Amino acid sequence: MFELLKKDKLTESRLGEIVLDRGVIQTPCFMPVGTLATVKTLTNEDLENMDARIILGNVYHLLLRPGLEVIKKAGNLHKFMSWDRPILTDSGGYQVFSLSLLRKVKDRGVEFQSHIDGNKFLLTPEEVISIQTVLDSDILMPLDECVSYPSTKDKSEEAVKRTVLWAKRSKDMFLKKKFKNKMLFGIVQGSTYSDLRQECAQELQKIDFDGYSLGGLSVGEPSQLLYNMVEQTVKYLPIEKPRYLMGVGLPEDIIECVDRGVDMFDCVVPTRYGRNGTAFTSEGKLTIRNNPYRFDLAPLDKECDCFVCRRYTRAYIRHLFNTNEILALRLTSFHNVYFYLKLMQRIRDHIKHGTFTGFKKEFLSKYNQ
Amino acid sequence: MFELLKKDKLTESRLGEIVLDRGVIQTPCFMPVGTLATVKTLTNEDLENMDARIILGNVYHLLLRPGLEVIKKAGNLHKFMSWDRPILTDSGGYQVFSLSLLRKVKDRGVEFQSHIDGNKFLLTPEEVISIQTVLDSDILMPLDECVSYPSTKDKSEEAVKRTVLWAKRSKDMFLKKKFKNKMLFGIVQGSTYSDLRQECAQELQKIDFDGYSLGGLSVGEPSQLLYNMVEQTVKYLPIEKPRYLMGVGLPEDIIECVDRGVDMFDCVVPTRYGRNGTAFTSEGKLTIRNNPYRFDLAPLDKECDCFVCRRYTRAYIRHLFNTNEILALRLTSFHNVYFYLKLMQRIRDHIKHGTFTGFKKEFLSKYNQ
Repeated sequence: MFELLKKDKLTESRLGEIVLDRGVIQTPCFMPVGTLATVKTLTNEDLENMDARIILGNVYHLLLRPGLEVIKKAGNLHKFMSWDRPILTDSGGYQVFSLSLLRKVKDRGVEFQSHIDGNKFLLTPEEVISIQTVLDSDILMPLDECVSYPSTKDKSEEAVKRTVLWAKRSKDMFLKKKFKNKMLFGIVQGSTYSDLRQECAQELQKIDFDGYSLGGLSVGEPSQLLYNMVEQTVKYLPIEKPRYLMGVGLPEDIIECVDRGVDMFDCVVPTRYGRNGTAFTSEGKLTIRNNPYRFDLAPLDKECDCFVCRRYTRAYIRHLFNTNEILALRLTSFHNVYFYLKLMQRIRDHIKHGTFTGFKKEFLSKYNQ
Repeated sequence: MFELLKKDKLTESRLGEIVLDRGVIQTPCFMPVGTLATVKTLTNEDLENMDARIILGNVYHLLLRPGLEVIKKAGNLHKFMSWDRPILTDSGGYQVFSLSLLRKVKDRGVEFQSHIDGNKFLLTPEEVISIQTVLDSDILMPLDECVSYPSTKDKSEEAVKRTVLWAKRSKDMFLKKKFKNKMLFGIVQGSTYSDLRQECAQELQKIDFDGYSLGGLSVGEPSQLLYNMVEQTVKYLPIEKPRYLMGVGLPEDIIECVDRGVDMFDCVVPTRYGRNGTAFTSEGKLTIRNNPYRFDLAPLDKECDCFVCRRYTRAYIRHLFNTNEILALRLTSFHNVYFYLKLMQRIRDHIKHGTFTGFKKEFLSKYNQ
């Protein structure tokens, strides 16, 4: 279901394609985050117009609201939210460990209380696969144990062991479902310990997954450590399977990690920054509320051809932010997600033409000027 | 610039057309409110897609934010907000009398402090025309004095006298500008006193305006009193000029006032209700957060063909509201404004075919069921 189309000569960057029943995804790709069955502020029409091929959903959040019964009534997550392209669902492991209350982790699974209303839940690896079966996710993630940064080696090692144990049970459950054309990824944990990352990557490969996620990163560690961990993990992953760096990141992180062999990314940054009034542009981040933009009739990004940049000015969008107009959030979010998707398109084009290294240098130089 | 195309036989309802440089508007029409240079939550693309021919701007609000200098830098209000169809601007009279602080009204004009930052402003009738000249509004409103409801007859009479005085000076200033294809309306005040309304209507006609607005209504009075005041005012207005009922209203108000001879309406209701989770439907108002919609896979309005109703369900939109997702506000606002524009289209079709009375009865019966 993943085809590696090309491996760059100078870097670890790769060109690939994931073929799913609901659509084809060119990699490296960025997947907009639709945690609660909506990519914040955007319609599905918006996402289709910018050619988003796959979006993310989240087991933890959807389980809490609207709840599985509601989604089941609609048929599945695609029908519930009226999105017929692929959806990758995160298992909710990260959210259980970062958001939920009164958490108890045992080998069996994890008990927790909802951060919304205190309702109790028990998630087992098997249950998480079953939930994603109800959602009808195209790419599934197994339940994993995430540690915060920094974490002791002992604690990190324990989380790796449990993640591998749960991964095996997830795979067993996944096989029982006899899916055709769905993918289950293994999630590599190990905090910032290269040897744990290596061990986890190797153990997961014995189970054999359709792809490998790099989890527990972009949780507060410095960029160089993130890049280093990616390097130290990717080299123990099989070349013929897609690699997905979860929750990353800023444009510079994405380009650095493509360079290191990552194929898939997701991040709330383009929408979250968009709602806070920060636009991503070819010349770096732009804080639209700032006074210099008061009279600025240029678009958010002079090099962008999205509908926002073709029609609306910085002065206008600044005014919308300063008057708390909701349209501001959507315009900037749309532009930012478009910027990310376009960046991935350019990355793919340059890998294809063997010019990725030059593009990376040029992009970063202009972006960081 | 206004052509009366047809007068209904059974009611006072009329079919007309307003021809402006920036576009043609069929009447009776509803004008979405874009107070701060945005129809809340919607893009201009949204408005064009639903065939909104004219929107409102507001002198008071735009003067405060972003300020005239910013709009002047962009060229005019159309260019600032990137909307090239007609714009009607309200003079801000209503806002000065309902929102501003430390207000001092003299015959010369009105001094007030901004409700945003306390900055002081002086608005004279002449200045209000000059501001609308900078905005390049297609239909201008003169500064008027609004009284709250209820108001004593003395106070109401004083406001009428000042409104007429200001109207004359506004017209003089308007003539000095030598506009081609812009319209200046006179605003009929008089609170809930028929004789004051008559007097105001007749005095304004001596000055001779391109259209007549009914101001100071929908400010808390009962519906029947609103309808009665409309009747008592419209009969003193010339048949060959458009009549604009400011700030009205609910669908039932609009249909009742079309029946009484009103040609133009504006109201924040479709967007404000939309943001609060109330959808207008052919079967009445629908409060989408309510529990019965949890599993409801029907669209907001089964008879609506807007993009929201064609794609998204009540269950999904309810989920978006319950999780405070911004998309909820836009979907419901879009549907509501579409519902209003479609209602006006149907009203025009039925006036054209001489079936307005039957349509009104059928619509209200279903809407109020």
